[in-house]
Amino acid sequence: MISFANDYSEGCAPEILDRLQAINFEQNPGYGEDKYCLEAAEQIKQLIESPESAVHFLVGGTQTNLVAIAAALRPHEAVICVDTGHVNVHETGAIEAIGHKLLVMPGRDGKLVAEEVDQLVQDHIDDISFEHMAKPRLIYISNTTEIGTIYSEAELAALREVADKRDLLIYLDGARLGSAMTAKTADTTWTSYSRYCDAFSIGGTKNGLLFGEALVIKDPAWQKDFRYIQKQKGAILAKSWLIGLQYSEILRDDKYLKYAAHANRMAERLAESFVELGLELVDPACSNQTFVYLPLDLHHKLREEFIYEPGLEDAKNNRVSARFCTSWATKKENVDQLIQRMKELLA
Amino acid sequence: MISFANDYSEGCAPEILDRLQAINFEQNPGYGEDKYCLEAAEQIKQLIESPESAVHFLVGGTQTNLVAIAAALRPHEAVICVDTGHVNVHETGAIEAIGHKLLVMPGRDGKLVAEEVDQLVQDHIDDISFEHMAKPRLIYISNTTEIGTIYSEAELAALREVADKRDLLIYLDGARLGSAMTAKTADTTWTSYSRYCDAFSIGGTKNGLLFGEALVIKDPAWQKDFRYIQKQKGAILAKSWLIGLQYSEILRDDKYLKYAAHANRMAERLAESFVELGLELVDPACSNQTFVYLPLDLHHKLREEFIYEPGLEDAKNNRVSARFCTSWATKKENVDQLIQRMKELLA
Amino acid sequence: MISFANDYSEGCAPEILDRLQAINFEQNPGYGEDKYCLEAAEQIKQLIESPESAVHFLVGGTQTNLVAIAAALRPHEAVICVDTGHVNVHETGAIEAIGHKLLVMPGRDGKLVAEEVDQLVQDHIDDISFEHMAKPRLIYISNTTEIGTIYSEAELAALREVADKRDLLIYLDGARLGSAMTAKTADTTWTSYSRYCDAFSIGGTKNGLLFGEALVIKDPAWQKDFRYIQKQKGAILAKSWLIGLQYSEILRDDKYLKYAAHANRMAERLAESFVELGLELVDPACSNQTFVYLPLDLHHKLREEFIYEPGLEDAKNNRVSARFCTSWATKKENVDQLIQRMKELLA
Amino acid sequence: MISFANDYSEGCAPEILDRLQAINFEQNPGYGEDKYCLEAAEQIKQLIESPESAVHFLVGGTQTNLVAIAAALRPHEAVICVDTGHVNVHETGAIEAIGHKLLVMPGRDGKLVAEEVDQLVQDHIDDISFEHMAKPRLIYISNTTEIGTIYSEAELAALREVADKRDLLIYLDGARLGSAMTAKTADTTWTSYSRYCDAFSIGGTKNGLLFGEALVIKDPAWQKDFRYIQKQKGAILAKSWLIGLQYSEILRDDKYLKYAAHANRMAERLAESFVELGLELVDPACSNQTFVYLPLDLHHKLREEFIYEPGLEDAKNNRVSARFCTSWATKKENVDQLIQRMKELLA
Repeated sequence: MISFANDYSEGCAPEILDRLQAINFEQNPGYGEDKYCLEAAEQIKQLIESPESAVHFLVGGTQTNLVAIAAALRPHEAVICVDTGHVNVHETGAIEAIGHKLLVMPGRDGKLVAEEVDQLVQDHIDDISFEHMAKPRLIYISNTTEIGTIYSEAELAALREVADKRDLLIYLDGARLGSAMTAKTADTTWTSYSRYCDAFSIGGTKNGLLFGEALVIKDPAWQKDFRYIQKQKGAILAKSWLIGLQYSEILRDDKYLKYAAHANRMAERLAESFVELGLELVDPACSNQTFVYLPLDLHHKLREEFIYEPGLEDAKNNRVSARFCTSWATKKENVDQLIQRMKELLA
Repeated sequence: MISFANDYSEGCAPEILDRLQAINFEQNPGYGEDKYCLEAAEQIKQLIESPESAVHFLVGGTQTNLVAIAAALRPHEAVICVDTGHVNVHETGAIEAIGHKLLVMPGRDGKLVAEEVDQLVQDHIDDISFEHMAKPRLIYISNTTEIGTIYSEAELAALREVADKRDLLIYLDGARLGSAMTAKTADTTWTSYSRYCDAFSIGGTKNGLLFGEALVIKDPAWQKDFRYIQKQKGAILAKSWLIGLQYSEILRDDKYLKYAAHANRMAERLAESFVELGLELVDPACSNQTFVYLPLDLHHKLREEFIYEPGLEDAKNNRVSARFCTSWATKKENVDQLIQRMKELLA
Repeated sequence: MISFANDYSEGCAPEILDRLQAINFEQNPGYGEDKYCLEAAEQIKQLIESPESAVHFLVGGTQTNLVAIAAALRPHEAVICVDTGHVNVHETGAIEAIGHKLLVMPGRDGKLVAEEVDQLVQDHIDDISFEHMAKPRLIYISNTTEIGTIYSEAELAALREVADKRDLLIYLDGARLGSAMTAKTADTTWTSYSRYCDAFSIGGTKNGLLFGEALVIKDPAWQKDFRYIQKQKGAILAKSWLIGLQYSEILRDDKYLKYAAHANRMAERLAESFVELGLELVDPACSNQTFVYLPLDLHHKLREEFIYEPGLEDAKNNRVSARFCTSWATKKENVDQLIQRMKELLA
Repeated sequence: MISFANDYSEGCAPEILDRLQAINFEQNPGYGEDKYCLEAAEQIKQLIESPESAVHFLVGGTQTNLVAIAAALRPHEAVICVDTGHVNVHETGAIEAIGHKLLVMPGRDGKLVAEEVDQLVQDHIDDISFEHMAKPRLIYISNTTEIGTIYSEAELAALREVADKRDLLIYLDGARLGSAMTAKTADTTWTSYSRYCDAFSIGGTKNGLLFGEALVIKDPAWQKDFRYIQKQKGAILAKSWLIGLQYSEILRDDKYLKYAAHANRMAERLAESFVELGLELVDPACSNQTFVYLPLDLHHKLREEFIYEPGLEDAKNNRVSARFCTSWATKKENVDQLIQRMKELLA
């Protein structure tokens, strides 16, 4: 079975495995105090042009979100996020488990809208019982979003303006940051993130690493004592150099963005073919996740040969929304095979 | 200034103060192990016809909610509640602060709808990532609701059916339970609550006590070690007999319901007068909270002489929604004075 | 049975009940925004000569400790306390339940020793794995201590010096602050506490109030958004004016210290009599708690007529340590009756 | 510089890297639902002869401890551990951060003593304020211990007896379980752990894996919904098959124990040489950690060429305690080189 289930089905970029082989018996200090983490942190600071930022390496996405947010907030402070946000939907209440309320907004196309965030804070201030309500303090956004859309530079700038006006922090979950920067319609670059965010992650797990997320923290108060909190949540890998090494390799020669671009190109090929086949796309996705409505009949046959992520079946409309996810490792022939098979089944 | 701001503006039923005077120098054991708590617990168990229930006395409503829920749930278990629910809106994230996610539903008239709860659980089960989502486990409802509506016996029975089918617990926040049982359209009685809920509170603060909430727990697993958790949250009053004594007094001769009925009758007088004055009621309220739209002009003058709780001003429609709350202590002449003044201002 | 079990067996100072009667039907705003809380806060700020302090009113001691500490610390920061400290022994893990580790020290006579605290921080800094250990941040002390001893002005000054050197906060649990200031050997006064502590409580429950603790916060960062956190923990009484009124009354005409002095005088009478009877005192207690070793034989008879708090029986030495607690309400004739009965039983 | 700093300085067993290379482009389902995790879980259940156990794969040790304990306890329940226990000393308060108090005991040689645990529970029960104290519920032990000692089968059996008598759970942190089973004086085998523990971990990070801990849960209530809690704490690796594959490889042909035995043999060689050199061992260590007192002079020179973990310098006795740690990857020639150099420096 060929899988389009997600972007973390394969191992890692071959160059990384080669590096791991080469240094396997090298002795490195533990817990992130090694030369590879140092090197990768420097590479990142140069890319984002932010020498004052702190860079930490963590293992996974939910972990990165919860450690970052734990370090940022006092107990009564809340996280503003969109209803489809990963922290709201797919982290088993990880943020609530560290004590913080999510203030959930509908947003637009999976994205927070700056004016709506501004209004939410104004409404909080205007409420006579404001101290009886969790205090809006941190904006959580992800890029790409959970539905595959992307933030433009202007949208990030607008959120920054509201954040400055309202004393909010911006945290961007960049589990698919490479995909966000290499989407066809993207206008953000590495420095967009250091310019507009107080902290953001650069995802590795979904872009060619075995595992690993790099967390960039620009805000000085947020930086303070971060490693204590990282350790407390079980989030410093003993052999952290494994992550440092992977990042130092993937960031070399622009490989991080090249791999991401490949995933996007494969997705575009899929989306265009879906449309040609007469299928309706669900969302204005433009990155490596393609959401499409499949007739139930097609779906039931297709899933015998291909793996992808269906939503709940909609019997009334005789269809199901399905996510097809491409990655750094997706082979063009597999995409073509899927399309060919769909063509046959629809015929 | 005459206040209709809330139902906790005055002290307590005079009979209670007399009792406190009478026993002031009596020596009682601390932390709820006194004869008054014992007596009040027995009175409650008789009223609700549930000798197997445990009864605990706490100080306030938010405290009662958070201690009860802390005792019921494992870390990944979530609370189902309606968007206007007190735990969602006005407890500064108290439930999240003890680690639990709220699964917020729109409901209907401030109330959860049994079929919708059932569907929420079904959707959770059907989701391929169900372990990545907090697990629905406890139904939080309040009676009266935060918008003054009440649950019927049939509605409670329907929720119970879903709870049994889905292995959910039902917790009912009864901060205004007296008002719920004595509303004009009410059909629930004391035994409704022990029949349909796994735990519920009987509010004292808003119904004639200086302070105090009685928490009834029917579920045996929930009862276990409850006092440990109560103490851990700072929620056992050293002189708990103060609460026991107040309950033993207010429950005597049906005073609890009589006081509640008075509050409701005053509210009905208000609501009817509002309608006669040509004002529009906001909600189908039927208990001691009356929500009405006031023209901004009227509002600006009225609030110089009366205290009530306005929402955010709606300039577009030139009105504001305002809550007028009556209580066990509301004087009929004050109600009449308010109406008279509104009549003058509207003339 | 006459009880020396604790200092919260009776109701409250009669003047307070009279005040409650007088204002029972007055309408006051809720949640601490009333004139009585304001008045009492002003009285306290004048007594401690600290107009820049914030004063909040809470219901009980464990609650006050946990809310105060929740407002002060980031997740990785720990509380330094003595092994007998109330937060360590008798709050069912309340501080851990809000996420913070206790760094427990043996101390001396129930008190933290400044040099030992200094060394603890130095050891933390010197440890190569310091980020793998909770960070010492807040000194928790209580006055009087849990074993009835008191801090001198010099001891508080020494702790302050270490706190300043080490960037630590000092929080003093003053559940028995009156007793600490009126003990025979006391040299602290109201201003000692505002001078040396960043925050401290002034206990009401054990000194003539029905209930209530006043929390004074001097540190500006600690003050910020305190009421949000207080609400989140269920720790703002709806009718907070009940606490404000009680404090405004007990602080008038120095009654707070007069009641405390009475409790201490009764304890001294007890301690002197115990020694005269040939019994050995356990601790160098000098306030309203007297710890004495009772022969098991005496204990078994005595407890049929009097209530006090025994420790675990020590069969080997044929004795039990027992706490006799006096209070603002202890009657001299009851003390004399106890001593007389012990004399008879020992004869 | 040659390092004896710890047992996680190198990468992994070469066989493992070869396997990772071989399957790098295989597509596997995420989050532990792959064939390698399944295979490794089966291997473990066979080794420990416990088909009813659940096996989960996590990334690191602190993470495993905190997720396991979060899944086991209600809020008021406490963890019994020895003062040197990893959860007490080197996890930045991770257990307190999920809300639970540690009840810390001195133990003996870094190990809990069954009779002392029994007495601790009895004292809790006997205390008149027992509900004001966290409830002892889970025994945390580690094997090897943090000071390199090991539990005998009889010691585990004794703890089990107390656990059964007192309704306690036993959790064993097996970060160095291989070392514990292959120490010269060891009498435990794989089945010892499934026989005496309710849950235990089998450490990979320190025994030949890149990373990974296998958690075995025997207790059915503890097993329930475990993956929800694992996800909530950010502790399910997206590409969990990486851990499954590593375990399936290291458990093949008894390699897990062979690697561990190598580490122990190297440590014994070190310890014997230290004694021959006239140095004093600190602890009765018998596994892969050797604690020795070094004269300060020797230490200052030695650390220019070798890396190891010194404690705080003891100027009074002109010595420092130092830990030398060997591992699956320690080369005999490096051990010999260290000893040779010490000999020269001591000459």
